[in-house]
Amino acid sequence: MSTTKAPLAAALALAFATSAVLADEGMWTYNDFPAARVGQAYGFTPDAAWLDHLRLSSVKFGNGCSGSIVSASGLVMTNHHCARTCIENVSGLTHKDYDRDGFIARSVPEEARCPGLEIDQLTAISDVTRDVRSATDGTPPEKFNDVQKAAIAAIEKACTSADDVRCEVVSLYRGGRYDLYHYRRFQDVRLVFAPEGRAAFFGGDPDNFNFPRFDLDVSFVRLYDAAGKPLATPQHLAWSEGPLREGDVTFVSGNPGGTSRGFTLAQLDDDRDVRLPKRLYHLAELRGFLTEYQQRGPEQKRQSTPMLFSVANGFKAFKGRQEALADKAFYGRLAQDEAAFRARVQADPALAQKYGGVWDAMAALVEKDQALRDEYNALEAPSDSPLFRIARGLLRHAEETTKPDADRLKEYTDARLPQLKQEVLANRPVYPELEIATLGWWLTKMREALGADHPVVHQVFGTRSPEQVATEAVKGSRLADLRTDARGNPVGGYRKALFDGGKTAIDASNDPMIALARALDGPARAIRKRMETEVEGPMKKQQELLAQARFAVYGTGAYPDATGTLRLSYGSVQGWSEAGRAVAPFTTFGGAFARATGADPFALPDSWLRAKPRLALDVPLNFVTSNDIIGGNSGSPMVDRHGAVVGLVFDGNIHSLGGDYGFDPATNRTVAVSSAALLEAMGKVYEADRLVGEIRSSTSPVLAQGGGAPSGVTAGTPPATH
Amino acid sequence: MSTTKAPLAAALALAFATSAVLADEGMWTYNDFPAARVGQAYGFTPDAAWLDHLRLSSVKFGNGCSGSIVSASGLVMTNHHCARTCIENVSGLTHKDYDRDGFIARSVPEEARCPGLEIDQLTAISDVTRDVRSATDGTPPEKFNDVQKAAIAAIEKACTSADDVRCEVVSLYRGGRYDLYHYRRFQDVRLVFAPEGRAAFFGGDPDNFNFPRFDLDVSFVRLYDAAGKPLATPQHLAWSEGPLREGDVTFVSGNPGGTSRGFTLAQLDDDRDVRLPKRLYHLAELRGFLTEYQQRGPEQKRQSTPMLFSVANGFKAFKGRQEALADKAFYGRLAQDEAAFRARVQADPALAQKYGGVWDAMAALVEKDQALRDEYNALEAPSDSPLFRIARGLLRHAEETTKPDADRLKEYTDARLPQLKQEVLANRPVYPELEIATLGWWLTKMREALGADHPVVHQVFGTRSPEQVATEAVKGSRLADLRTDARGNPVGGYRKALFDGGKTAIDASNDPMIALARALDGPARAIRKRMETEVEGPMKKQQELLAQARFAVYGTGAYPDATGTLRLSYGSVQGWSEAGRAVAPFTTFGGAFARATGADPFALPDSWLRAKPRLALDVPLNFVTSNDIIGGNSGSPMVDRHGAVVGLVFDGNIHSLGGDYGFDPATNRTVAVSSAALLEAMGKVYEADRLVGEIRSSTSPVLAQGGGAPSGVTAGTPPATH
Repeated sequence: MSTTKAPLAAALALAFATSAVLADEGMWTYNDFPAARVGQAYGFTPDAAWLDHLRLSSVKFGNGCSGSIVSASGLVMTNHHCARTCIENVSGLTHKDYDRDGFIARSVPEEARCPGLEIDQLTAISDVTRDVRSATDGTPPEKFNDVQKAAIAAIEKACTSADDVRCEVVSLYRGGRYDLYHYRRFQDVRLVFAPEGRAAFFGGDPDNFNFPRFDLDVSFVRLYDAAGKPLATPQHLAWSEGPLREGDVTFVSGNPGGTSRGFTLAQLDDDRDVRLPKRLYHLAELRGFLTEYQQRGPEQKRQSTPMLFSVANGFKAFKGRQEALADKAFYGRLAQDEAAFRARVQADPALAQKYGGVWDAMAALVEKDQALRDEYNALEAPSDSPLFRIARGLLRHAEETTKPDADRLKEYTDARLPQLKQEVLANRPVYPELEIATLGWWLTKMREALGADHPVVHQVFGTRSPEQVATEAVKGSRLADLRTDARGNPVGGYRKALFDGGKTAIDASNDPMIALARALDGPARAIRKRMETEVEGPMKKQQELLAQARFAVYGTGAYPDATGTLRLSYGSVQGWSEAGRAVAPFTTFGGAFARATGADPFALPDSWLRAKPRLALDVPLNFVTSNDIIGGNSGSPMVDRHGAVVGLVFDGNIHSLGGDYGFDPATNRTVAVSSAALLEAMGKVYEADRLVGEIRSSTSPVLAQGGGAPSGVTAGTPPATH
Repeated sequence: MSTTKAPLAAALALAFATSAVLADEGMWTYNDFPAARVGQAYGFTPDAAWLDHLRLSSVKFGNGCSGSIVSASGLVMTNHHCARTCIENVSGLTHKDYDRDGFIARSVPEEARCPGLEIDQLTAISDVTRDVRSATDGTPPEKFNDVQKAAIAAIEKACTSADDVRCEVVSLYRGGRYDLYHYRRFQDVRLVFAPEGRAAFFGGDPDNFNFPRFDLDVSFVRLYDAAGKPLATPQHLAWSEGPLREGDVTFVSGNPGGTSRGFTLAQLDDDRDVRLPKRLYHLAELRGFLTEYQQRGPEQKRQSTPMLFSVANGFKAFKGRQEALADKAFYGRLAQDEAAFRARVQADPALAQKYGGVWDAMAALVEKDQALRDEYNALEAPSDSPLFRIARGLLRHAEETTKPDADRLKEYTDARLPQLKQEVLANRPVYPELEIATLGWWLTKMREALGADHPVVHQVFGTRSPEQVATEAVKGSRLADLRTDARGNPVGGYRKALFDGGKTAIDASNDPMIALARALDGPARAIRKRMETEVEGPMKKQQELLAQARFAVYGTGAYPDATGTLRLSYGSVQGWSEAGRAVAPFTTFGGAFARATGADPFALPDSWLRAKPRLALDVPLNFVTSNDIIGGNSGSPMVDRHGAVVGLVFDGNIHSLGGDYGFDPATNRTVAVSSAALLEAMGKVYEADRLVGEIRSSTSPVLAQGGGAPSGVTAGTPPATH
């Protein structure tokens, strides 16, 4: 399907360099998109206007998801699972259960604020490699992290012209290049539509990362402007209702969270043998704990469902990654790639002298990392208790803002303050019973990792058990006290007083959750400092060398590893072969009804059962494409050559999980909801006429070349009518 | 400490062949004990009488633990954690909580039957290698397992002269030799003494596999004869109260469950990358599940405690093994050993021709194993539900006993029938709520492993959820119906009727738990058959070749991998160095009180707090030695050169966990309760005068050479008095 030209092919070969077919591999930056290559493969070459339009219609969620603007009034489409926390928060604040029942705002006033949710739109990218590099030139490894951090903070601060401007320096090619990403920031985001959890996540954990699949994993939220009105968004995506056919070119615009295709073998071994197993033990145990916690009662089940979803989803994803590395054939290809790369470096005396030592240096740093990691994870990684995370945010905000910007922990710099504020002062419901359970569990795991004789354990626990510490901290805390105005903005309460009062207020507080965060803070900062100084800084320095070596050997035409920032992937609709059996690329509504048993997670909601006679059962529900994506792409729009929405990305197949390390074009597939299914369900199942009308009426001011009016307007699938 | 003579050293080098000091490595069989080597190292050479006496005083528990006979009236010492299930069963049957309160039988009639517990005494060993080999000579790989199984069943059946004789063919050196082990079997075992769980497992999971340690991990049970009277045991161990000193020689006689020191690298990689991680995910999730299940209430907590202990203990043990293999230095030594071994084989054309292909053949079989394993584990590995295990036992017993002995699944042959009966008809309490929870969880994991579209899932679940299937199977089942006589032997009830009624009764049964076992049985047998035919048989054949290659290169003087059968290890009392800090070999009662916080798992029982003024706080409580042990050695007696008890093995340190793959003499340590501490506590804390008197009065009819009367009689620690 794709043509392979030798020099470019070599440049692309971040992984599986020995494979002849490079196909649709790559999560490309918008400022380095291989348009000509797409043209050769698919007969369509995106131009700058096409790319700009898609970029400006794409958004990044603060929770790591992706989304797209699909109307002139700020309507944003994403996955149901990307809005799960919002759905739960809105339920908790209104004493409803919108995950069970679905949420449909029949008018603008019914749209409900998502506490703490931020959405960003990428407005510009500029190259700051020279500025970042010049700051660290000649810096010894143990100072590298501090010096680079200060330089980045200064660049971000200088760029941040207003509270709704977010600037972030992104390290691309693992230190090969530094770009400054300019975003427009939206902090008033409201829930518009979500189907029932049963429809969105039909098949549950068993079907997750599998295909055939039958999920309506969609939700809509809306961006609001500073005046509290729906945001005017002239730049937005048009809609295609299809028909989409096998082989059609597809583009996915979203924010893949991270890939590790530039890892050295020492890092891969670390992932396979140490890092992923430990993470998986943690997630597996927490999954078991939360599964049984849900038996405490229906309200406890409702409250813990988003956390359980996230834990189970993470478990399955990381398990797939570990299994990819445990596969001797897959791992063998990665090992071959590194051997070939090292051989090229060694063959050139100049390169060998500059870069020949990088791999061994990385291996030594990985060992150092392993020696510090248990303590780092126990003390500095985010707590499983939301209330503790708020307490630490308040405490550190108070401490860090007394320092010059350059000296602060990076998440407390001036440029990042609006994000922190949005998180810490979010009006999310607080559930004491769940807090006690998760904090107690987290503290138990901390003691397990540090050992019962660690000084921190003696200091924090004294003669108390983890459960006692958790109970006292949650029951005695006033951090849930937060008052908001009609728009959901924080205006008062104990938590806001602590935030506004800074170090004086924090130092004076005897809130037991603050006290717990305080007791852990010294040791947590100490291990973080060691990790940054002894591991992260020196590793960044080695990674810069490795990136330079790669440029020197393979040229600069490759895509960088994913970085949680906006990327564009191209591919086409296609199934794959599973153990000799062909997997067809489309499923239908009819398939969902055939698969339903009535017992969760294979129960369809009543709304679907009632609507069944009206539904066109042969409308494609889900489908797969060869686009190269990874976690973080959830909620990404999938568009056709006209830039019109043909699908909504919500998953990858099981083979996509190894995509963290290498893309296998034969089996790695993206899974999406079809745009036709979205309209069919919103119209006939949910009678969300306002929403359907808004989507249908939207025409895009920047038209795709070769397209004229967006194709969806005259689509092959009959429009929904009622 | 040990001398190293070249030919023997090479022969011993199952692992870490490159290490110069082989020290106290080895779990030796009694019929091949290197007495001369011990003499050279410690100046004491055990003779045949000494070895026979220790062997006949050692016992093997049906649950995998070890123990020793310590009085003339059948008193058996083991760990508290080896009797946990018995303690819980007795509690459940009498509506008490002996794990919380401890159990002390003040008279013989108060001793309480342990349902389902069997204890075996090794009476003789004979070599049957020729018989086993001749049966499989020329057998193709795919028939190997069946043919060998039939030959072994015939040998065991011919040897089994009575119900209280157990015969088992043991494959030593991974197929290098086959020995027939003759046991005397005891199925009436009664609980005599157990301290509170808080004393036995002080420090809980955080301290497990760690040292310094402060546990009274002991229990006593008694063997009863056919007439229901305490068994006369003229052969038993005498008691030493010490003083034991650093450097003193120590012997451990017990049943290490299994080691993998003869693994090829392909098998080690499989353990590190696939087998152990999957097992650990399962255990981690079950640990989380049970931890939260315990919150349902005190009775639910009591019922689930033995299962949670076993799961948490297994998790920590397997995690330690995986971490040992993930350690580049440890793994590197194992890789070097294999490379050296292969080089020796390749260097000799005759050996190369015979054995050169073994390693690649094993690697291919490991891949085959991996392809079948998920389905095998889901369908054929023991269920997490005890009631389901009973149902499967009844079902298969009925089916298998219609076949000739040679054609049966191996656990249903005539020679093994008494064990099966003891298990299936044990009068253990049944807890429906816990059964529903664990069966539901197990079925959920089964669906996860097989995938929702597997035919078995469709057939067994239909439109029901795993929880629904479990609830219906448990609530509708009559398998808990079992009537027993005064001695606890089954005499009636539905379960016994099904066992006695054989295939006719089973076929007629519509019990839903039997029906569930029946629905799963065909697919479970099918995957087992594939595993045995395609993997296990061919692997056994390769392992025989590998063992012969090892004998050819290194000679026959090495010890075999552990096989769950009786072994003798020698060593001495010694600490080790941990990150440059010396760990002293002894702890004391005083240390336990210093460590106690009052909050579990660091709470001492009230009995200890009350007895503290009377206790000699400087009496050694726990200590470490360089003996080479592994899981299964729990409950092993540790004796001095006089054959007198100086300790009770209950754990290994964290470094001992890698001992599955290789023994590191610098850090691998056995952890034991001192014999002095046992008497001190039983006398002063528990006032178990009857028991103390019985132990003190015991003199051993076979005296150790060089010893005269057992040293304990005139020990340095003052005897407990009251």
